[in-house]
Amino acid sequence: MNYQIPEINLKALFLGDKGENVDLFKEVLLKAVDEHVGWRQNYQPQDLPVITPYDKSSKSFQDTADHMRSVFNELSAKLRSESLPWHTAGRFWGHMNSETLMPSIIAYTTAMLWNGNNVAYESSPGTSQMEEEVGHQLCKMMSYKEGESWGHICADGSIANLEGLWYARNMKSLPLAIKEVAPEYVVGKSEWELLNMSTNEILDIMDQIPDKLDEVKAKSARSGRYLDKLGKWLIPQTKHYSWLKAADIIGIGLESVEAVDVDSEYRMDITKLEARIRELAAEGTPILGVVGVIGSTEEGQIDHIDRIVALREKLAAEGIYYYIHADAAYGGYARAIFLDENDEFIDYDKLGDVYKEHNIFTDMNLYDQWMTEDIYKSFKAMSQVETITIDPHKMGYIPYSAGAIAIRDSRMRDAISYFATYVFEKDADIPALLGAYILEGSKAGATAAAVWTAHKVLPLNVTGYGKLMGASVEAAYRFYNFLKDRKFNVNGKVIELHPLTKPDFNMVDYVFNEVGNTDLEKMNKLNHDFFDYASYVKGGLYNNEFITSHTDFAIPDYGNSPMQFVQNLGFSVSEWDRVEKVTILRACALSPYAHDAAVFEEYAEKMEKAMQEKLEKIYMYEMDEQ
Amino acid sequence: MNYQIPEINLKALFLGDKGENVDLFKEVLLKAVDEHVGWRQNYQPQDLPVITPYDKSSKSFQDTADHMRSVFNELSAKLRSESLPWHTAGRFWGHMNSETLMPSIIAYTTAMLWNGNNVAYESSPGTSQMEEEVGHQLCKMMSYKEGESWGHICADGSIANLEGLWYARNMKSLPLAIKEVAPEYVVGKSEWELLNMSTNEILDIMDQIPDKLDEVKAKSARSGRYLDKLGKWLIPQTKHYSWLKAADIIGIGLESVEAVDVDSEYRMDITKLEARIRELAAEGTPILGVVGVIGSTEEGQIDHIDRIVALREKLAAEGIYYYIHADAAYGGYARAIFLDENDEFIDYDKLGDVYKEHNIFTDMNLYDQWMTEDIYKSFKAMSQVETITIDPHKMGYIPYSAGAIAIRDSRMRDAISYFATYVFEKDADIPALLGAYILEGSKAGATAAAVWTAHKVLPLNVTGYGKLMGASVEAAYRFYNFLKDRKFNVNGKVIELHPLTKPDFNMVDYVFNEVGNTDLEKMNKLNHDFFDYASYVKGGLYNNEFITSHTDFAIPDYGNSPMQFVQNLGFSVSEWDRVEKVTILRACALSPYAHDAAVFEEYAEKMEKAMQEKLEKIYMYEMDEQ
Repeated sequence: MNYQIPEINLKALFLGDKGENVDLFKEVLLKAVDEHVGWRQNYQPQDLPVITPYDKSSKSFQDTADHMRSVFNELSAKLRSESLPWHTAGRFWGHMNSETLMPSIIAYTTAMLWNGNNVAYESSPGTSQMEEEVGHQLCKMMSYKEGESWGHICADGSIANLEGLWYARNMKSLPLAIKEVAPEYVVGKSEWELLNMSTNEILDIMDQIPDKLDEVKAKSARSGRYLDKLGKWLIPQTKHYSWLKAADIIGIGLESVEAVDVDSEYRMDITKLEARIRELAAEGTPILGVVGVIGSTEEGQIDHIDRIVALREKLAAEGIYYYIHADAAYGGYARAIFLDENDEFIDYDKLGDVYKEHNIFTDMNLYDQWMTEDIYKSFKAMSQVETITIDPHKMGYIPYSAGAIAIRDSRMRDAISYFATYVFEKDADIPALLGAYILEGSKAGATAAAVWTAHKVLPLNVTGYGKLMGASVEAAYRFYNFLKDRKFNVNGKVIELHPLTKPDFNMVDYVFNEVGNTDLEKMNKLNHDFFDYASYVKGGLYNNEFITSHTDFAIPDYGNSPMQFVQNLGFSVSEWDRVEKVTILRACALSPYAHDAAVFEEYAEKMEKAMQEKLEKIYMYEMDEQ
Repeated sequence: MNYQIPEINLKALFLGDKGENVDLFKEVLLKAVDEHVGWRQNYQPQDLPVITPYDKSSKSFQDTADHMRSVFNELSAKLRSESLPWHTAGRFWGHMNSETLMPSIIAYTTAMLWNGNNVAYESSPGTSQMEEEVGHQLCKMMSYKEGESWGHICADGSIANLEGLWYARNMKSLPLAIKEVAPEYVVGKSEWELLNMSTNEILDIMDQIPDKLDEVKAKSARSGRYLDKLGKWLIPQTKHYSWLKAADIIGIGLESVEAVDVDSEYRMDITKLEARIRELAAEGTPILGVVGVIGSTEEGQIDHIDRIVALREKLAAEGIYYYIHADAAYGGYARAIFLDENDEFIDYDKLGDVYKEHNIFTDMNLYDQWMTEDIYKSFKAMSQVETITIDPHKMGYIPYSAGAIAIRDSRMRDAISYFATYVFEKDADIPALLGAYILEGSKAGATAAAVWTAHKVLPLNVTGYGKLMGASVEAAYRFYNFLKDRKFNVNGKVIELHPLTKPDFNMVDYVFNEVGNTDLEKMNKLNHDFFDYASYVKGGLYNNEFITSHTDFAIPDYGNSPMQFVQNLGFSVSEWDRVEKVTILRACALSPYAHDAAVFEEYAEKMEKAMQEKLEKIYMYEMDEQ
């Protein structure tokens, strides 16, 4: 069904920082439960219930029910005492946790009652169809062509990244296999040329040899062949450790993964990328692929996808081709803010008008502060890459675990497909033979229902998710502006707050430093102590008035990219060389409420007070220990 | 908390085939929701709600809520019209779908409100602790030693199997890496000897070189080294296609996977296994590992784990060692039926008495019919294998997706571990650094809560899950006995039912055949047609009075193992050679109600009638087409 989308009020879609919408939540949830129960009752209504009133009155039934109730008392106590209050409108500025969409929680619960397994279409037609639809919606959000592209839900972003690398590895090896099985299609090509064929070229050949497909696949990397010939997998230095795991698992080895330096904005340095690719090419090492990150894990920064794509076009003229995977696990949904109500990518100079029309920002100054052509172009160019990881359980505001991958050219599926008779028949007319194309062998239909419902309620453009993304960016900029140049007086000392960068998206990294301090270790200790008090470590979970997360940028992982920031804070190069790391506080601005000026101002006061108190404790108890 | 477990009444733990327990379900669910909302309200109770009464009265709020309600109408309609009625007490005998435990559904929903990510302990202390506890419970169910073993939840059984292979691959390569980095620990060992070191020997050396651990790991298979030296991964011919995917992904290649013939009971033929291992050893090919299956996907049969273990001991004396992985994705929970209330493995000759004491079977004759020393010994020997896949979402009666893996020696984790600063600090005192040791990079805390709650309500021994397993086996045997020698008269023809084997567990495979028919293709068509009418294909989903699933046993996958069965049905060897496959109907007996004699008898009549009607339709419409 296509809905007429009303003016979306985000406040109607979350349970609420104080559970304000609990009545609406229960109403929709209980209706769903009743409809499920009605369905059970009316399947063969002549069949009598097997659980009788006598059963229910029996002692063993009552005892078992009481036992279950007791276990739930323990569950509830554990959850309430050992969980984080990310639901607050303005006190939690830490990990990627927040309210999730009420419709997705209810939809998950509803579909769980039917417990479909989306790998077996036969046992889950409804939710399997939803997953197929969700896959196409995600492709459309990436401006992948309809009818040519395909996507699906998977366990999480690491699994999606692993799947992307699996595609890249098998694709890269196909020309070598074609050379063995159908050499007439690659006549005269050297090994170097074979290893630098474009994804399109390869797929076009595969199209011409349907009868030899299985044989070609059998001689590809899936046979264990050629793994050492496929070259380097280049990732930005802000690398997520999932790429090391993936390279281990997929058999190309950790040394095949190379980090490309990032600039002082924590985006991959494209000049260095080009230089490294040319260096590798000169020594005969191919490029298996390049990963661009949309929303780096620690900084939320956006790589220049457009420039990675442009570089590929330039190098293609010189016979060098690389696969591009966009790791948009975090930022993928943000592309919704660039799509108009017809899902068309909006012209740069019209963005402001569209946002005003759709009330994407309550304060357009914050939009002006955020948006740059760099960010715009990066998002736009995502349509040009082979595969994209997008996590619904991050910026999709869907409960864990829901990752996803979008695939530009669905013909690539043949590079990895398997068939198993009991799961499906090869010729069966069903949406997608999921088990054949993905890493998992079973998957919850409930996840598909949760994502599908969220996408129906909030379309993946400015009429829906775009609004939620705008709220998040706006909240991030309010927090960023709150931090800038803020000062605290503690025991006669002045402590200043400094954001790491102007955020590309909705993550704000920052540090406290004592004015005049030139000892980097001391600053690191201050921030680590602050984290302790602003987290479960020393601050408590539930009675904590301000919560944040932290990370370390150390030379083994980050090289010297943090040096500019550290120098700007007044530390010397030799101090950086001595300490080799900087401890950073990190806030994902996910609250769907904090973009509102009045809400933010109210909490800004509370945050300032909580920060002051934590700093006082630190200076009382911690800084003396030095 | 340790609970006094009452006499468990399974009927109190499921929503009910007609939703009989909907009041109890709502009571517990709504209490959990209210407690969650109370928690939100009382975090910093001085903070005012951000969603105000005025907000809720606004047009955009009302419109958004109505829009959401409309989407839920569509969701409900889709689920009700496109799902399978596996909730019935006796009409669904098909795929691995059934009622799931009410406490696990409610616990999942409850924990979803907190939305923990169990890879980041910091953001999910409560559910991370539950996962740690669940891991130890699963290990205890396998009689792995406490304090030495470890386990965790993962996305599903295919991912757990992939993780098992990852462990095996990296472990097998470690001695080659030790030879490079710390040769003094493997002085005088040939490459063959290095590739045949036991898991224990390897781990003991690793214990002695903590400072060189990282260097050894860097030179192991995770570097892409040695993948072609590690030898063969031997699986039973009843192989699940997930092993082919896993071998592709993990880089050892499809050809490293070899199927070992199964016998006519669909259990791996250990004589052939030994012969093949000796053949491979003679040509210098090591054995990467052997997979034993506990509950094969298509037949539910149980491999002789004890004999696989004994063979390893025998061959060890000859310098041959292989890793053993038990794929107990399906049957893992069945080990609970062998554990007494103190979690000790029960003596074979005491089983009957214990089962009588705990009312595990309503009819002990069915227990006698089922239990054999072969089955008993297989389950007992599971404690001797390196890793075991166990899916809570199969025989754990937990909603999808919940797989798990148990690891006998937790030191093995070092063979695959990674660290990422933002997820955890290396020295932090937290239960397990999950992200470092598993494939996924995020995972739902809700899954852990669902499994934890189920395990608390139903302990993993005869006082809890053992009862549910007994009910399932008993139902399977009732169905098996129902099928045996049953005859239908259709259009003057006699159609007989024949079970494939006496079930090792709770899966019953069977075929229909026309008396006197010697045309195997005709029998296959009859059974395929029957499936069509007993499934969504032609029978409809909701108005279908009997539902089953099907599979094909064909020579490319099964070799000649089905020949004995086919011959017993009166087909000639040449007919088998001509047709090369047999179509089988397949019933997973998961209903928690059908073990009851009265319930089964009531449904037996209904099944017989439904089968008769389907056969009549087939003979009216389908068999003429030939």
